[in-house]
Order: sequence, then structure tokens, then C-alpha cells
Amino acid sequence: MSLIPRTALPALAALLIASAPAIAARPDEGMWTFDNLPAKKMQAKYGFAPDQAWLDHVRLSSLRFPGGSGSFVSKDGLVLTNHHVGRSWIQSVSGPGEKDYIKLGFVAKTREEEIKVPGLELNTLMQMDNVTERVAKATAGAKDEKAKAKAREAELEAIKKEIQAKTGFTPEVVTLYQGGETWVYSYKKHTDVRLVMAPEGQIAFFGGDPDNFTYPRHNLDFSLFRVYENGKPYNPPHHLAWTQTGLKAGDMTFVTGHPGSTARLETTAQMKMTRDLAFPLRLKAVERQIKFLKAWGAQDPEKARQVSSQVFGLENTQKAITGYLSGLKNVEAMARIEKAEQELQARVKKDPKLQAEAGQSWAKIAAAMTVARGMAKDSAYVNTRGSQLLGGALNLVRLADEEPKADDKRLSEFKETNLKRLKAQLGNAPRNFNKDLEIATFAHGLQEALDELGPNHPFVKAMLGGKKPMDVAKEAVEGSKLTDPAVRKALLEGGKKAIAESKDPMIALAKKLDPLGRELRKKQEDLVSSVVTEHGGRIAKARFAAYGKETYPDATFSLRLSYGAVAGYPANGTQIQPFTTFAGLYDRAWGWGPAAEHGAWALPSRWQDRKGALDLATPFNFVHTMDIIGGNSGSPVVDKKGELVGLIFDGNIESLPGRYYYDERINRAVSVDARAISEALAKVYDAHHLVSEINGK
Amino acid sequence: MSLIPRTALPALAALLIASAPAIAARPDEGMWTFDNLPAKKMQAKYGFAPDQAWLDHVRLSSLRFPGGSGSFVSKDGLVLTNHHVGRSWIQSVSGPGEKDYIKLGFVAKTREEEIKVPGLELNTLMQMDNVTERVAKATAGAKDEKAKAKAREAELEAIKKEIQAKTGFTPEVVTLYQGGETWVYSYKKHTDVRLVMAPEGQIAFFGGDPDNFTYPRHNLDFSLFRVYENGKPYNPPHHLAWTQTGLKAGDMTFVTGHPGSTARLETTAQMKMTRDLAFPLRLKAVERQIKFLKAWGAQDPEKARQVSSQVFGLENTQKAITGYLSGLKNVEAMARIEKAEQELQARVKKDPKLQAEAGQSWAKIAAAMTVARGMAKDSAYVNTRGSQLLGGALNLVRLADEEPKADDKRLSEFKETNLKRLKAQLGNAPRNFNKDLEIATFAHGLQEALDELGPNHPFVKAMLGGKKPMDVAKEAVEGSKLTDPAVRKALLEGGKKAIAESKDPMIALAKKLDPLGRELRKKQEDLVSSVVTEHGGRIAKARFAAYGKETYPDATFSLRLSYGAVAGYPANGTQIQPFTTFAGLYDRAWGWGPAAEHGAWALPSRWQDRKGALDLATPFNFVHTMDIIGGNSGSPVVDKKGELVGLIFDGNIESLPGRYYYDERINRAVSVDARAISEALAKVYDAHHLVSEINGK
Repeated sequence: MSLIPRTALPALAALLIASAPAIAARPDEGMWTFDNLPAKKMQAKYGFAPDQAWLDHVRLSSLRFPGGSGSFVSKDGLVLTNHHVGRSWIQSVSGPGEKDYIKLGFVAKTREEEIKVPGLELNTLMQMDNVTERVAKATAGAKDEKAKAKAREAELEAIKKEIQAKTGFTPEVVTLYQGGETWVYSYKKHTDVRLVMAPEGQIAFFGGDPDNFTYPRHNLDFSLFRVYENGKPYNPPHHLAWTQTGLKAGDMTFVTGHPGSTARLETTAQMKMTRDLAFPLRLKAVERQIKFLKAWGAQDPEKARQVSSQVFGLENTQKAITGYLSGLKNVEAMARIEKAEQELQARVKKDPKLQAEAGQSWAKIAAAMTVARGMAKDSAYVNTRGSQLLGGALNLVRLADEEPKADDKRLSEFKETNLKRLKAQLGNAPRNFNKDLEIATFAHGLQEALDELGPNHPFVKAMLGGKKPMDVAKEAVEGSKLTDPAVRKALLEGGKKAIAESKDPMIALAKKLDPLGRELRKKQEDLVSSVVTEHGGRIAKARFAAYGKETYPDATFSLRLSYGAVAGYPANGTQIQPFTTFAGLYDRAWGWGPAAEHGAWALPSRWQDRKGALDLATPFNFVHTMDIIGGNSGSPVVDKKGELVGLIFDGNIESLPGRYYYDERINRAVSVDARAISEALAKVYDAHHLVSEINGK
Repeated sequence: MSLIPRTALPALAALLIASAPAIAARPDEGMWTFDNLPAKKMQAKYGFAPDQAWLDHVRLSSLRFPGGSGSFVSKDGLVLTNHHVGRSWIQSVSGPGEKDYIKLGFVAKTREEEIKVPGLELNTLMQMDNVTERVAKATAGAKDEKAKAKAREAELEAIKKEIQAKTGFTPEVVTLYQGGETWVYSYKKHTDVRLVMAPEGQIAFFGGDPDNFTYPRHNLDFSLFRVYENGKPYNPPHHLAWTQTGLKAGDMTFVTGHPGSTARLETTAQMKMTRDLAFPLRLKAVERQIKFLKAWGAQDPEKARQVSSQVFGLENTQKAITGYLSGLKNVEAMARIEKAEQELQARVKKDPKLQAEAGQSWAKIAAAMTVARGMAKDSAYVNTRGSQLLGGALNLVRLADEEPKADDKRLSEFKETNLKRLKAQLGNAPRNFNKDLEIATFAHGLQEALDELGPNHPFVKAMLGGKKPMDVAKEAVEGSKLTDPAVRKALLEGGKKAIAESKDPMIALAKKLDPLGRELRKKQEDLVSSVVTEHGGRIAKARFAAYGKETYPDATFSLRLSYGAVAGYPANGTQIQPFTTFAGLYDRAWGWGPAAEHGAWALPSRWQDRKGALDLATPFNFVHTMDIIGGNSGSPVVDKKGELVGLIFDGNIESLPGRYYYDERINRAVSVDARAISEALAKVYDAHHLVSEINGK
């Protein structure tokens, strides 16, 4: 579940690679573009580097899913991806009872039974054009920055049109190395996609939230779709042959997929700010929230049920941040990152042009981080304090202010492109509203602000007015009419006047919060974000000027190749096994019993019934040294022959620092073994027709 | 393997219990004596506390093994313990080929086939007498400390004689609470003990050194012996009935056994010295040694084989010390320990008598620790530097000096009680001597001393005399005749004259090392050890005066009861399952392949052949919240009914800080499930007669 890209995490600046010499990627590190592989390093370590035919075959067999990756695995357009990549699409064609395919799984016994998935679009990367020089030529004569940007945009539009006219593909601009290179990647779009097979959600996500981001693992996290064209199965020019031999420990593997973004480009000043303040504050708040929700749930089983998914979500956030933070706290790794930064600074200093462009940029970002540190607590606590109603109220108050403004003057969420959806949302009653929980949550949030900011902080004074948090929360929630869609609609349509006249206590609180929030936001944008964007970009450009393509560009959710080998790793006091097996699946189910952790390790009935038919020695999941990140979910794992041997679905807990750097000793990608998929299709799901199809029979 | 008591670790002083109020043991903490259980706490948490009949039954079913624990499990004197407790005894009755019972396992098909184990003595604790008051009365009139000690000794002798005459048992004095209470524990000795059954060493210690101290685990770590009397199976008055129901998560369990010693009584000054200097120095040396041996082994496979068991041993030391150190580095736990110390200091201050006795003791120990810190590096590096020959030479040099002295003036290893064994050892050629490795090891050791102490340190000067470590090592090892037993014998018998006249280069080096080593040792004994013994004892007495029996006495390798429940724990990013199963055993064997880590996870052929016969869902190992320590190996695990449900054999990696404090959240004992033993006896070893016997049929 962890490999869907976190779009909320902005990719910033200054590529820092940990190694000596600091610039070179470490062994097996890197999310490489298909035009620039470290072939020498691969050859030296594994005695193999892909040739062009291999690369073309693998690229043309790969697919981009919304938020993830996939691949063609038969000549009839069968598509393999993760269950968790397909999950929302499976959900979208599911129904109640027998049609609850998330719960029960789904197998189309014939092609006629395959279910069309409206809205699902897959893309194959057909062509990659480096247009850096052409764009440079087109913008060479521009008299200023504005003209240059305009010329650049015009040239890119022209290029895209040319490609589209010539090939029929859909071109997209891809900026690599923070502007160091400009490419046009052209895709073949597939819009008729049908659901073929999905296992039960419980076996796909066996171990549930507790096992998320961990290994040893036992997840059958796959699903099968099929691409159609003109009402018939599509015959892709390339697809991955299913392995007939399988992997063993030490074997070289490759992954093609769409890594979303990392934070490896941040300066050390940014990382330290995150390490010292942003993450600890976040963790503290999350811990407090979990404690509060658990205490609330402890009142009775129904209340426990109401908060359980929120608790699980927070516990996963806690796990992820703890993992990222452990990376930032790793003294050895941070020393390498600092060394790389110093080396780049020294290179910049020696070159007058680079020095003029980026010489001051580290200091500027460091100064911005000082500002960010000073406002970190306010940023964390000056907000709607978990109240659904206050959240709605604040948006209503601001909408009245923002809508009359010109589009480019508005706060981003009120810009024309977002407005329609926001208004629809604001007009509805809040989802899953629970008055008692809302009061308790809001009171808890206000108490937290009081504890953290103190009674004399302007926000605390404005919210509490000297009263107790519980009294304020109760009064505001019980007195508010914002649960009534009619009331919301009236405020939504009534503009400034309706807001000004409203006596609703939540609207009143929102009016007090609004100016404080705006002030904080303006400060954050003017003194922090804009500086980081500007000077992060300058550092990145200097870096590309200094080092060029010696290393990989940061993740951009475009197609990349990672490589490495199947390998265990040291953890938990021992060495962790490279493969798990179906025997391990049963061990964990039996070792916990079905009731543990809300059934996280319970087996679907089909898996209980078919145990005797399965070869329990079948490899189930495995770990390998792959540098991947969110967006790689569903990526095919291929071997030297270019055959499908597995399917990426997660990283181990030690992979979380991969957000900042790659540590080959312990960072591992977790994949489903191809042999587990065919064994399950045959022995558990009676899908012999699909087994024949993937085996090319 | 980890629960054999570490006799090398001295039990020191000042009982520090972590909790609020600081004195009370935390839930499930404690190695309780049978006369003083926390019945109220047990009742409150588990709704059960043992009554006297239960306690007598369990105690009289328990056995003390050399270095470990065991229990009677049939009316015919069948005895259950760990394989690793029985291992050296199994080895002692083994032979080559078919008789290699460590490798192949052993099953006596009839009683006639049971093999007598010479020298193995088991003990049942029949009677416990608190003689504190009687000793106090007997010593009340003593005019000074010496007279008091004499009177005490005489009274204890008298008591022991009385008991022996009356019961025929063997009495032993047990001092609890560092002298707070004196007991006589009386044992029935069993000296005719025969081997009945042992599984293959490979299944008993599946996962080998890598898995040592860890969980999830899959070890069939048991063996069966039988006690005979007058040539017939002994019928013990009590034995543990084998469970017919088994355990499940949350069930209360008890363990009876012989915890050896902890370091929980150290003052915080001692713990900090260990944390800051002793352990880091040790770890550094161990790491360096591992690196050296691995580099040496990397030359060729035969050399790798020669050093492999040494490397494994060092890696286990590294694992254990890292675990202990993590406990000392735990800020929260250390704060609790400091708080408890401060509370005891406050209590002492309020009581003039206690203040006179122990008021200065913490400061005295702290001062001794300052001395210890100052000499820590010398203590670590001024020694025989890993050379077997120099070790022998130093003992030969010292023997000539020491033997002529009165016994009480000698260094401890030369006292009459140790002398015979030492001389026998010294007269032999060094064991497994490998000249090349000896040279390399010695050179490495000298280089290490040079690096750590610097070229001007007297020891370094004395050893190297300005030469290079490798030259010194080569010259001394190649020039020495100490590999020849005849030469050693001549030096052994020749006294001071022979030593003085010897031209052997190792003897020459030993003569230079001797005075430096003696000086260091004297300083250590006079300024550190003796202070710690004296003032640690004073603090302990003050503590018992202040708090009495509110808590448990420190481990003394006498019978204790621990209690708790079967429970998983958080680790590795997830929740760890409470039970493993036979399915997990196969998963780990298959997941590694047989070759990994020198076959650590390879399955004995019998376990490959019989897989189909086994119920793979059988619980194999489990974890529970038990406060145990080295010496508890082989302890029976019993349930509320007093039935045998399992067999303690190790702790998880998180249990290592248990040396300093008990943390119920993550410290777990690891046990073999009783059901795994009966399933294996029946389905793998065809030992149906033993299954019938343990089931009382």
C-alpha cells in the first residue's frame, strides 16, 4: 500500500548523492532513465548490462497506471499490476453481496465475463525525444525571461504537435535534472480496460496495516486487467514472457516503473529542519491523536469501530514518519550527504558563472529554514483543530472573500480550476458526521493548542476566549447548523453578506481563525516556499552543470529502470530470508489466530479450503536491492532474459529512509514472486485458462 | 544457547527497580522465591495466584541441571530439558559415525537402550528453611566481625548437619537480598541419569548462531533423560502432567528454574561506566577482531573454515553486548533506574543507622568508577593480545613465582584448588594450534595495542621494542618451542631457575608483560573490585532494611518462579506473532535454501522425509512475558493447572537489556510448545512409547 506516490510531498532542490566520490550513485542505487544506464557498473557487478533490444522490449511491455505501474503479460493484452493499484478500479465495478469483488475476489471465466472499467486509462511509453537542444535554439534569441518562457512553451507545443501528427501518440513534456534536460515522452493511450481477475482483498493485503512497509511478508498483491481495442483484446507489440525458471537468491533483477518523487534533492538545511522540528512536531501530534482516539474507542465496541480506520491510518503515518526520521537521524548517512553538498559548493565556488547563479542559494535556503523553524509550532497548531464543521466554516468564510477576486489573486484552492469541486463539497453535509466524536475531537484539538501554544497565544485567545476547550467545542458543535445542507447552501450562495450576518458559532470561530491563518500562510509562502523553489532550482541547475548525467535524475513519475539482486538483509538480530513461501502464509495465520488485530492475518475461506492443493514450498514474496519509491507499485520485476519473475508491491521498514538516500545494505523492495501468482491462479482460483495464457499456450 | 548463566559476570550491588513507586516490581517482572510471591498482583491481573499445593507440586517436579533447569515429566522419572542444556552430556556419550548423536539425534527404543551419562547430577529442591533468625541469634554475642563470621559459619554447618541427618538431603546455603535473608535449600541428588532421546542438533538449534537471541524462532530445543535409582527408573513423588489442551495467546504461564545472575543491582555509576567505556571498548575490539578473522578467512575456503566458529562466537558476543548496551542507552529506562536510586538514597539519609552504614557508598563506588574509567583502555589492551603461546608463557612465568608462595598470597588462578588443572593444561601443547593464524592473530593484536595505546605506552614499548608488530609476532611464534610438550614440561617443573634461563622468545615477552599486568591487576582489585564488593553490599543491606521483601531478590541460581502471559510484541515495523508453527519451520528452510549461512537453516533429512506426516499447524515456539535470565534454560513452562505446556530456551533480542531491567512491552522469553514435542516424537521420531509415557498412558 505504501508505494502510491505521495503527491503531497513536494520535490525540492539540490541533488545530493551519498558516496565517495560523493557524486557517483552507490552500487544498485538509482532510478535510471532508459537513455542513460550505468552499463559499466552493471557489467562489473553482475556481468550483464541490457542491450537496446532488451531495453525496448521491456519498456514497450511496461504500462503507466493512474498513480502506479503495470505491464503486458500476454499477447492478448493481459495486464498485470498490484491489487492495491487496481483496488479503487475493482471497487468501482463492484457491488453488494456476490459482487463485492474486494471482499470475495473476482475471476472472469471467459472473456465475455471480463468487466469494463470506466475511466481507467493505461499508457505505454512508445517514444522518447530529447528536445533540450531544440528548445535551447528556439529560446536563444529571447530578450528576457518572459520572452524565453514564451518561446520555450511555443516550441514545446510545436514539437508535441509534430509528434502527434506523425505517430498518433500522446506527447508529454518531461523535465529531467530540474531543467538540465527537456524530453518529450510519447504514449500510446489505452482507454478500454477490463477487469479479468482479482484475489480477495484479505490475501492481497494479508497482515493489513500492521504488516504494511514490512518484511517477511505474505501478500498476493496482484490483479489482472485486459486492454481492448475496437471491442477486441489488444495485441501489444511487446509483452513480458512469464518465467519458466524463477529466481533464486543472488539473481539479478530489474524493475521498470514510475517512481513519483523523493526528497533526496533537499539541502541539508531543509533536512535538518525536518529532522529537528517538522517531523517531531508531526509525530507528537499524531501520537497524541492516536492516544485520544484509542481512549475514545475504549468506551465501547461501537465507538472503537467508529475510530478504528482513523487509528490505523494514523498508525501508518506514525510508522512512515518514524521511518523517514530514522533516516535523517542516521549520523553516517547524513555525514555522506553533507560531504556531497560541500563538494558541490566547492565546485560552484570555482566557476564564476555558477557562483553568480547559485553561490548564495544554500545560505538563502538556510535562512528560509530559520524562518520555518520559528513558525513551525504555529504552522502545526494554528488550524481548524480537527473539527469537520470548522473546516467547512472556514472555507465558506474564505469563499465569500475569494470568489469575487480575479483568478490569479485568489488562494490556490479557490482558483477557477478547483472551485466547482470545492463548492459541491461545501454544499453537502459533512461525511460520516458523528456529533459526539466531533465534540471530543474538537475539544482535544483545542486542548492540544492550549498546551502547546500557551493561553496567551493570539490563536488560543481567539478560539477559547478564556473558556475551557470542552465548553467551546460543545457550544460550537451543538449550536452550529452547518450539518444542514440547506444552511450551507445559503451561506455558499449568499456571499459576503450572508457570512457577515451569520450567527452560526462555527462561522464565528472561522472568522476569528481566518486572518491568523492567512497571515501565517503568507509568511510561509513569501519567506519559505518561494525561496526554496527559486534557490533549490538554482542549485539543481548548478549541479547538472557540474556533474551532468553521471547520476540519475530525481523521480518524476515517468518510466525508469532500477536494478539489483535478490538478497536478504540483517534485521531483528538475525539475517532475514530472501524468499517467503506459502508455508509462511499459513504459519502467520495460525501463529496469530484469526481474531488478532481485527483479522489482519485471517485467511479467506478459499485459502483455507485449498491449502491441501497448494505446493507450500512455492516462493511467495521476495526482497531485492532495488532503489524504488512511491509510484513503483505494480512495476514488473524482470530477469536478465527480460522475463517476468515478480511484481513490486512495497518496501521493507528499512526502505523508508529511501526518501532521503539509498542504503543498499538494508533497503529492500518487496515483490510478489511470479510463481506464487501462477500457483494461486491454478490451485486456488481454478483459473487454468489464465495460467495457459500467461504461459503463452 | 543464550540462557546458560554467564558466570563471568559478577553479581554486584544495590537493587534498583524501575517503576513508580520506584521500589515495586513492574507487572510480570520478577524472579520470585517460592516463599514470597506477589499473589495480590497476580490475582489482580490474571484472576489467579498459585496455592501452596500448586507451588509444592511444581517445585517438586522441577530439577536443577548443571548450568540450567529441567523437570520430571512422567511417573517413571522421565526428565525434560533443553537440547542445549543436555548437549555436552549427549556429546559425552556420543561417538563417531552412527553414534554421532549430536548430528543424528538419538531415540532409545526400549529402557535397555537408554544410555547412562557418567557425571551428570540432577537435583530436586525438597525443602527450604529460613535460618536468618537462628543465624542472627548464634552470632549476636560475637565480639567482632571475625568472631561473627566464624559463629555464622559454625551455626550454618550445624544446621546443615541436622537437616542432612534428619532427611538425607543435601543442604546448601542460599543468601538472598545480599545477606538480608539466609536460607538453607535442601536437595535430593540424582546421580544415575540416562539419555533417553535427543533430536538432531540442527533442528534443536535451527537457524544457528544468526537466529540465537531472536524470534520468530523454530527450534526443537529439547532432550529427554531419565533418573534411575538402584538400577530402576525412579518414581518421583511429583511430576508435571503433559498438557492435553495447550496454550493460546493471552494465557497465563509460569516458569520454574534457576536464573543465574543479573546486573540489576549495579549503581548507576557502574552502569554508566559500562555504557560509556567498558562495552564500547569491548565492541570495538570485537568488531576489529571479526574484521581481521574474516579477512584472513577470505584467503581460501580452508582458512574460512578454520576461523568460522571463532567468527560465529564473536558475532554472538557482539550481538549480546549490542543488546545490553541498547538497554543502558535507553533514556527512559535509565531515568527510572536513577529515580529508584535517588529514592533509596533519600530513605537512607533519613535513617541515621543506614546513613552511617551506606550513606557514603554510592560516592565510594562512583569514585571507584572514575578509577575504572581511567584504566579502561589499559585493562582492554594490556594482555596477551590473542596469542595462545604468549598466554601459556605468561602462566609459566607466573607459576614459577606463585607456586612457592603461601596459598593465600597467590594470584587466584594459582591457588591450590585451581593448580592441578592449570598445570595439566600448561603441560600440553596448545589445542588446535595453527602457526599461520597464530602469527596473524598476534600481529593483529599488537597492531591494535599500538593503534589504541600509542607507540610510547610502556606496554607497547615493552612488546614491540621499536619493531613492527608483524616482525615481533613472526619472530616470537617461529622462534618459540612452546608448541613442544617436553619444553613446556621442563619449564613447568624447572621453577624460577628454568624460567630465568629460558631463551624462548615468548617467555621473554611474558617476562616483560608480567609486571605491567600485575600492576594493572592490583590497581583494579584494590581500587575498583574491592570497593564495589564492599559498598555494593552495604547499599544492598540498606535497601533490604528499607524495603524488605516487597520485591524479589537478585538471581542466585536457586529455584525461582516467574509468571506472565503468552503475548506478541511490536518489532520490525509490525506486531510479532505469539506462536510459530511447523509451517514456519519449512518456510524458513525453503526461504533461505539449504546453503545459506553455513546451513544454519538446513533441515535434517528426517524432517524433510516426514513433512507429509506432520500437522504443519502444530504450534512450535511461542513468546511470553517472563522475567528470566541465563540459567533458566530448560525450565518447564506450566499453566494455571500446573501442567506442562512448554519449555523455555531463549529470549528475544529485546530481552537482552533484561540484564539491567525488565521491560514487559517487548522483553519476551522464547519457549518450545509442548505440542511440538509430542507431535515430533510421534511423527518424526516414531517414539510412540515416549508419547504414551508423557501422556500418562
